[in-house]
Amino acid sequence: MIGGGQDAFIGAVHRIAAFMDGQYELVCGAFSSNAEKAKASGIALGISPERSYGSYKEMLEKEKALPEQQRMQVVSIVTPNHVHFEPAKLALQSGFHVVLDKPMTFSLAEAKDLQQVITQTGNLFCLTHTYTGYPMVKEARQLIAGGKLGTIRKVYVEYPQGWLSTSLESSHNKQASWRTDPGKSGIAGAMGDIGTHAFNLAEYVSGLSVSKICADINVVVEGRRLDDDGGVLLKFDNGASGILFATQVAAGEENNVKIRVYGEKGGLEWQQQDANTLQLKWLDKPTEILRAGNGYLSSYAKHNSRTPPGHPEGYLEAFANLYRNFALCVQARLKGEKPQPEWLDFPGAGEGVRGMAFIENVIASGQSDNKWFDFVI
Amino acid sequence: MIGGGQDAFIGAVHRIAAFMDGQYELVCGAFSSNAEKAKASGIALGISPERSYGSYKEMLEKEKALPEQQRMQVVSIVTPNHVHFEPAKLALQSGFHVVLDKPMTFSLAEAKDLQQVITQTGNLFCLTHTYTGYPMVKEARQLIAGGKLGTIRKVYVEYPQGWLSTSLESSHNKQASWRTDPGKSGIAGAMGDIGTHAFNLAEYVSGLSVSKICADINVVVEGRRLDDDGGVLLKFDNGASGILFATQVAAGEENNVKIRVYGEKGGLEWQQQDANTLQLKWLDKPTEILRAGNGYLSSYAKHNSRTPPGHPEGYLEAFANLYRNFALCVQARLKGEKPQPEWLDFPGAGEGVRGMAFIENVIASGQSDNKWFDFVI
Amino acid sequence: MIGGGQDAFIGAVHRIAAFMDGQYELVCGAFSSNAEKAKASGIALGISPERSYGSYKEMLEKEKALPEQQRMQVVSIVTPNHVHFEPAKLALQSGFHVVLDKPMTFSLAEAKDLQQVITQTGNLFCLTHTYTGYPMVKEARQLIAGGKLGTIRKVYVEYPQGWLSTSLESSHNKQASWRTDPGKSGIAGAMGDIGTHAFNLAEYVSGLSVSKICADINVVVEGRRLDDDGGVLLKFDNGASGILFATQVAAGEENNVKIRVYGEKGGLEWQQQDANTLQLKWLDKPTEILRAGNGYLSSYAKHNSRTPPGHPEGYLEAFANLYRNFALCVQARLKGEKPQPEWLDFPGAGEGVRGMAFIENVIASGQSDNKWFDFVI
Amino acid sequence: MIGGGQDAFIGAVHRIAAFMDGQYELVCGAFSSNAEKAKASGIALGISPERSYGSYKEMLEKEKALPEQQRMQVVSIVTPNHVHFEPAKLALQSGFHVVLDKPMTFSLAEAKDLQQVITQTGNLFCLTHTYTGYPMVKEARQLIAGGKLGTIRKVYVEYPQGWLSTSLESSHNKQASWRTDPGKSGIAGAMGDIGTHAFNLAEYVSGLSVSKICADINVVVEGRRLDDDGGVLLKFDNGASGILFATQVAAGEENNVKIRVYGEKGGLEWQQQDANTLQLKWLDKPTEILRAGNGYLSSYAKHNSRTPPGHPEGYLEAFANLYRNFALCVQARLKGEKPQPEWLDFPGAGEGVRGMAFIENVIASGQSDNKWFDFVI
Repeated sequence: MIGGGQDAFIGAVHRIAAFMDGQYELVCGAFSSNAEKAKASGIALGISPERSYGSYKEMLEKEKALPEQQRMQVVSIVTPNHVHFEPAKLALQSGFHVVLDKPMTFSLAEAKDLQQVITQTGNLFCLTHTYTGYPMVKEARQLIAGGKLGTIRKVYVEYPQGWLSTSLESSHNKQASWRTDPGKSGIAGAMGDIGTHAFNLAEYVSGLSVSKICADINVVVEGRRLDDDGGVLLKFDNGASGILFATQVAAGEENNVKIRVYGEKGGLEWQQQDANTLQLKWLDKPTEILRAGNGYLSSYAKHNSRTPPGHPEGYLEAFANLYRNFALCVQARLKGEKPQPEWLDFPGAGEGVRGMAFIENVIASGQSDNKWFDFVI
Repeated sequence: MIGGGQDAFIGAVHRIAAFMDGQYELVCGAFSSNAEKAKASGIALGISPERSYGSYKEMLEKEKALPEQQRMQVVSIVTPNHVHFEPAKLALQSGFHVVLDKPMTFSLAEAKDLQQVITQTGNLFCLTHTYTGYPMVKEARQLIAGGKLGTIRKVYVEYPQGWLSTSLESSHNKQASWRTDPGKSGIAGAMGDIGTHAFNLAEYVSGLSVSKICADINVVVEGRRLDDDGGVLLKFDNGASGILFATQVAAGEENNVKIRVYGEKGGLEWQQQDANTLQLKWLDKPTEILRAGNGYLSSYAKHNSRTPPGHPEGYLEAFANLYRNFALCVQARLKGEKPQPEWLDFPGAGEGVRGMAFIENVIASGQSDNKWFDFVI
Repeated sequence: MIGGGQDAFIGAVHRIAAFMDGQYELVCGAFSSNAEKAKASGIALGISPERSYGSYKEMLEKEKALPEQQRMQVVSIVTPNHVHFEPAKLALQSGFHVVLDKPMTFSLAEAKDLQQVITQTGNLFCLTHTYTGYPMVKEARQLIAGGKLGTIRKVYVEYPQGWLSTSLESSHNKQASWRTDPGKSGIAGAMGDIGTHAFNLAEYVSGLSVSKICADINVVVEGRRLDDDGGVLLKFDNGASGILFATQVAAGEENNVKIRVYGEKGGLEWQQQDANTLQLKWLDKPTEILRAGNGYLSSYAKHNSRTPPGHPEGYLEAFANLYRNFALCVQARLKGEKPQPEWLDFPGAGEGVRGMAFIENVIASGQSDNKWFDFVI
Repeated sequence: MIGGGQDAFIGAVHRIAAFMDGQYELVCGAFSSNAEKAKASGIALGISPERSYGSYKEMLEKEKALPEQQRMQVVSIVTPNHVHFEPAKLALQSGFHVVLDKPMTFSLAEAKDLQQVITQTGNLFCLTHTYTGYPMVKEARQLIAGGKLGTIRKVYVEYPQGWLSTSLESSHNKQASWRTDPGKSGIAGAMGDIGTHAFNLAEYVSGLSVSKICADINVVVEGRRLDDDGGVLLKFDNGASGILFATQVAAGEENNVKIRVYGEKGGLEWQQQDANTLQLKWLDKPTEILRAGNGYLSSYAKHNSRTPPGHPEGYLEAFANLYRNFALCVQARLKGEKPQPEWLDFPGAGEGVRGMAFIENVIASGQSDNKWFDFVI
């Protein structure tokens, strides 16, 4: 693991997600950009001192030098955005498979470069767009892909948070500080942090690609250096339209990402706060409530549940699904077997590049006086 | 009553709303533009044949000629949009108070004219933006007006319907036909029919005025002559921003108008499907659930409830609140008394003119390549 | 109307329910047991002084003496329980149809007598068990009657209120005072006031009859003279079992009556707080959400809605459905026509007698040391 | 681990719960009563062949003989009820700490014996009543313990499932078979499997002890050998009353355990389907919605969450909380430190004995003609 030392929220989440299904062991790490802190964090996490490295470069070099049976197999990178590209590239080139926190990189250019490295090295790569790991999100995608809703006409996706309603970054809150710092986060704040999740969810579920956008990007809290709010009108490649919003200043909101998609025959709705439920609405018959764990679901939804119906699984299980599917693919490769299609259903380089394109396009559209902005990569 | 004969949805709703609190009696009517049908409808509704008029002109003329004690006091106009202006103007000029279904008129110009007539005659006027009649919507407005949420930053309002997902107008559905007919509905379809409700709700609850818009207006169902869908980015006069959407092609949706407003200190959420509940969300304390009928509510919310907490009131009661408050104001005027502020809280000419401006601005913005469109009246 | 003067909650509700659909006019009344107050209330309600009677006896006598075209047709009795039997009996014997607030009478013996009077006079009689007036409750009954759930196995019904959590009767609250007064309410408090509603709902929806009970009846608030809480184990005539609870000391609860019924194939759930929704749960397929106003519902549900789907109707509309169906039956009789089955679907004498039997059996069971108590009438 | 081989539902849950926080490693196991299957399961789970034991006796003997640094520290026992007592007793006497699936044993007598063994050996013991592991359940307990609701008056707890609505045991479903087999499950079916959870939850949250019960215990599905349904009237030691129901024949229900507790000042409600929410209802102010992960919660709720508000945690995390707290206590003992009170908050021998007493009392009450049955241990 690279990054994710003490105080880091997402590092702990990655570890829980990796451990949950017993598929991963934490064998080494470079948990901080500060060598001393890195080593201390490693030891606190129960890693042997000699594999608690002072930097990711050291880690990759030394692990690579270990015998194949001893060295790590997968690198998790959970650093702020400005430290995504270099370690990911180096890890891939050192022969390791990589799990990388989103967004993929600091800039779109980096993302395209990294995509090339992935292709060239042939190593496996997973980008942790968590929300696609939920079984009922997978069910939604499968239902739409199977034509159950007919041609898709409308996509509404939203991601309201409230935790940045005040200038938290002024009070040395670590999470707030790097996310609002253009040097660490990139050109976008909320749009990069959560807007990319909403964007990815919209494309994943609908099976469509955004082709044009019209964005209203705002800095609501005075003095903040990056956007903390935005609303975006969307056009999709099939002619459908939609709306995306992501905000971190909706005071009182927690993290309730939600998507609604409507086709000719019906619509569906999913929200994280009721994650084990998928609503299917129909033009002329009762709404159906699909629930995780049930026998009537697709193989994709079933594969990503662990418990019978009525035993709620949540965010950590969705995250763990990414890790588990990635592990299953790594193992299949080691055994020379073909992975099942359900295992391959995790976000990769393509999604990462589109996410970075979203960031760059949405910020550009926000600054433009033209209404419709072509979504370019 | 003018309009609202057999087959008319909204006419029946107006009658129930008027009757509910025993404040109105239906004494006469011109229930259709077809004289014969008009008379038949009147008699079917239990009105004496001599006051079941063949046209609204006849009705206004003859009623005006009756002795004051016998003639009607209030005219309800529940016709399609192209028959709003003339009868309303004539009724006001004939000395009657007027309740008019929304939107106010066929065009903004008419609305401004009618506003002048209202001012000149001094008669009372109510425009039935039903959603402002809900007690918990009134509570929301009062809370924001009282500064409980701090400065308002975000307003999200949505009005999803699905009933026009197919070309219902092709199969002679009366409700669908006039609403999609530019000759009867005006320049807007969904934006006029339900977009104006959403717009009115956003301004009513937030206490703000929309100053700029950026609209994506769509005709989704092939062959339809007016918009059936739209999304609008909003800017308000205090610098807040927001999103409005209204659609009649969200297959499977019924009529779940919903509003969320966020200020510096917290947010609130109301939706018609759970109309007796208002959620108050706070930055740093538990969400509060305010419920209609309770003692802790404002005088505005209390005045607009009839039953103790836990006895759900709905759409018809919200509608009836408009009628009741209007009746209370009419009675106060007859008695020469000053109406209470709670009675005066119903939509009038100002809201009507802004609603018509919304229609004209949103359609113009939808056709424009410029991003931000000044909201002009 | 008998009873229902100033301060009376349920009298106002009856009037709204009667007025809503334009089927009733309030022509006379004896609104209080105090002659002066009765007359004042009548005049305040807009009734002519000569028909604002000082007592129900006077009213029934004088109205009976009026020419048929002028006299009232239906009497609504909305007094406390101890003044149900006498006025109802006299009204029926005077040739009037009667709408009576629940529970039917002060004692089971009175209820049986009244049932005989109803049979003998042949006049129409409605007992206002409001909850059976909801369209989705009617749908639930129809679905079970149609065998959709298979043989019924379990019935859970609950009626939690919290408003009597303190000794409100000590502070001269009128509603609390008569309900906790054995001289006015009868032998039961909560069991009579709301337990009878729950009992009626259970039998109405399930189509079954309770055959044995085992009751735990409590006086929770110190010094209260009647029960304010109870839980009851139920056995039904088909062998099904269930649980009923009704309480007025569930602090913080409003009035959320709820029923769940399970058969061999599935179950259903309805609660007043979300009154326009009926959940249908199945053994092996997704839960279905049926919503009022939709085309897929039974004729019974449709007949008892006024608005399209998504326009919430509530408690007052449910109450108005009783009044409207009663009016339709009265009119059919006047015209010598056969009423439609949907019109006849309102609670009458049979339900009233069973409700009184519930009160007497449940109190007796509560006082007994034997476990299972035969439900006797 | 003892038990929990292939096909076993709860064994996999225990493993996930143990792994999640990186506190446990699976080092050995006797995963089946069939030696061959046991070894195969162990190897499939990645355990070395020499520690994949053929029986729990072998495992305990051989592990005990290993050097302290190498041998296992904690034994998880996840077998059917008839194989709880012997392995637990032997494990404790062999010097291991024990995590045991509920109910504690096959009979109350065994439970009391085991309690003595626990006391005598001084080893740590956890019984996995999962629902007490939810942060919002802990918050509920803390609020009541802190007197926020005043004296408790009513406790309603329910556990509806539908999966045994048909005779699943006839079709060789492993989960159904042992649960309905008196030789494996004990004298109770549903009451033992899920009734004990409901009972434990009621006592845990309310802080009260059940003192009397009156039970209606049913076998609904023909031919079933143990109860699949029951309703129980409850009396608590402080005079409060309540109702418990648990059923496995509520067709269409999943696993929605729910509890409501009311005191003099207010009430609270929690249900597993919305596990991260706790409703607090008040006599005279708005309902409050407390949500997991927030700063305003008690130290007990906070300690048992892993993620910020709005990242739903579920059943597996609740289960993992038991394992984590147990691990923290084991580690504290190894270090000779005093565990924090939050760590000690997991179910142990006392809860286990009361659970077994519930089973025996509730079945006896169900067979008795006397109404109130003293809850004896």
